[in-house]
Amino acid sequence: MSIRIGIMGYGNLGRGVECALRQNPDMELAAVFSRRGPSAVTPLTAGVPVYFAADAAGHKDEIDVMILCGGSATDLPTQTPEFAQWFNVVDSYDNHSCIPQHFADVDKVCRAAGTVGAISVGWDPGLFSLARIYAGAVLPQGETYTFWGRGVSQGHSDAIRRIEGVADARQYTVPVPAALEAVRSGSQPQLTTREKHTRECFVVAKPGADKARIEQEIKTMPAYFADYDTTVTFISQEELDRDHKELPHGGSVIRSGKTGWQEEHHQVVEFHLDLDSNPEFTSSMLVACARAVYRLAQQGESGCRTVLDIPPVLYSAQSPEELRKKLL
Amino acid sequence: MSIRIGIMGYGNLGRGVECALRQNPDMELAAVFSRRGPSAVTPLTAGVPVYFAADAAGHKDEIDVMILCGGSATDLPTQTPEFAQWFNVVDSYDNHSCIPQHFADVDKVCRAAGTVGAISVGWDPGLFSLARIYAGAVLPQGETYTFWGRGVSQGHSDAIRRIEGVADARQYTVPVPAALEAVRSGSQPQLTTREKHTRECFVVAKPGADKARIEQEIKTMPAYFADYDTTVTFISQEELDRDHKELPHGGSVIRSGKTGWQEEHHQVVEFHLDLDSNPEFTSSMLVACARAVYRLAQQGESGCRTVLDIPPVLYSAQSPEELRKKLL
Repeated sequence: MSIRIGIMGYGNLGRGVECALRQNPDMELAAVFSRRGPSAVTPLTAGVPVYFAADAAGHKDEIDVMILCGGSATDLPTQTPEFAQWFNVVDSYDNHSCIPQHFADVDKVCRAAGTVGAISVGWDPGLFSLARIYAGAVLPQGETYTFWGRGVSQGHSDAIRRIEGVADARQYTVPVPAALEAVRSGSQPQLTTREKHTRECFVVAKPGADKARIEQEIKTMPAYFADYDTTVTFISQEELDRDHKELPHGGSVIRSGKTGWQEEHHQVVEFHLDLDSNPEFTSSMLVACARAVYRLAQQGESGCRTVLDIPPVLYSAQSPEELRKKLL
Repeated sequence: MSIRIGIMGYGNLGRGVECALRQNPDMELAAVFSRRGPSAVTPLTAGVPVYFAADAAGHKDEIDVMILCGGSATDLPTQTPEFAQWFNVVDSYDNHSCIPQHFADVDKVCRAAGTVGAISVGWDPGLFSLARIYAGAVLPQGETYTFWGRGVSQGHSDAIRRIEGVADARQYTVPVPAALEAVRSGSQPQLTTREKHTRECFVVAKPGADKARIEQEIKTMPAYFADYDTTVTFISQEELDRDHKELPHGGSVIRSGKTGWQEEHHQVVEFHLDLDSNPEFTSSMLVACARAVYRLAQQGESGCRTVLDIPPVLYSAQSPEELRKKLL
């Protein structure tokens, strides 16, 4: 019997989960849930029912794991604890500074309900967090560096779109090659924000808008752009639609450490992602984690987990015996 | 109270464990065990007792985890199961095809004795196995590639030294740049053994030895060199001692997969190591794993484990709360 998955929220991430499920024959898409209801959503998979999110509790016996595909700003902080009363849940909550609170909220509900929840699953937080914990434990004397990109930052793109006179925008976060090279060499440099990443903005201005002012507003925007070398390129909507429709991303977690009696040997560990589609990769991780959550629940566990807690073997469709034989 | 570690076998790996323990304040080196006994071994750490390996059982109450630092060919297949009757154990057993048998041997003893054993801990098997399981679970449609080097292969160096007329030798395994580039591009090429790695041999010939014959014997040696483009460079013992004394290594595990409804998006995951000292890095992983083994034993678990089974959080000296706050 395959693991029955529910998708809550049918945007980029929800569709990505649907695609990933096709690649995992031990799992099936049992239902899609949406606030907009069945008339507004047509899954790619033939024959899958769509229900109103508000009716989810009535379908608790049809779903083994619910994958929550909403946003971290407003959806997940309330949705994940709410759905955890009825379902084993997985989310991609990525508001880094609020993760301890979200963990506590979900853990409390899961323990009371006897469900398992996995939060902050994806690549950062997620696989990047795993790279940090393994490399940090193996090389306690060292520094961990994270570089993001080259890739589209949706948060930064949104911030540009909120500027008056902007019709559309796409922002790429780009690691500075010299900084990457220095870190990879094992030299453990101290790097400022400006030295690590640059920001490339492709902006469609509304007709008659003051481009000089828009450029100035972008480049001086606190937190988002002021601390970076930022370039602004005005393009047409056609160009943006043609050349910047995809959502690529990636990056590197690099741990640079030293070993030896005199700490005389440099050791560099790098975990690198090069992704054509950021949401589809995150979705693929959510699906693998849903398998782990299902197995934890089958073992009688309950409570909230993160990738840091979950034994690797639980993510894989293969048996422990096969994995020992093939991967070790 | 710190975790009391025993080192069994005081070669490169044993000394590496000793160095790594200095970087982990929650652990201490309690004793070194050696077949050669106390007169033959002088630890770097002041005041650490050295005992005969044969007397180890008498010290079972002084050691929380015994790290077995012997070789995979003859030491570990018997030592790890033997010591598991008295101690929680960690080893770096790396004879890939025999791991299932070694696992069964150690598991049987551990379960009977109520101890925890972790086998095949290091970077391959070890961290590379972790890269394979995570990336494979996230991207089920894809190919996994492993490249080793640039680094010294001790097995290949030994094979050259066994040839008549060879005084000393060092062999470097080197990934082919074009193959690495092709895999990183997401193209999923089919690669032969010859296309993935080259082998560079630095050989010291004995006085009067027939260098042409030595070179021919190396290049045609089955399994070790015949399937590779191999270069042989004759150097003096002084040059070898000066330029090839270190044991660097490294490599990459790369998973190249596809996602999307039409599997139209390439996704590439790479885990890369660049190590000045192969044995010290392996030792550092053994020490982090000894912490995990200690905690599993404290939780009342018993039996054999590999890195695939162990929750990441157990390797780290930091608390789960700190880790969630800092790494997620």
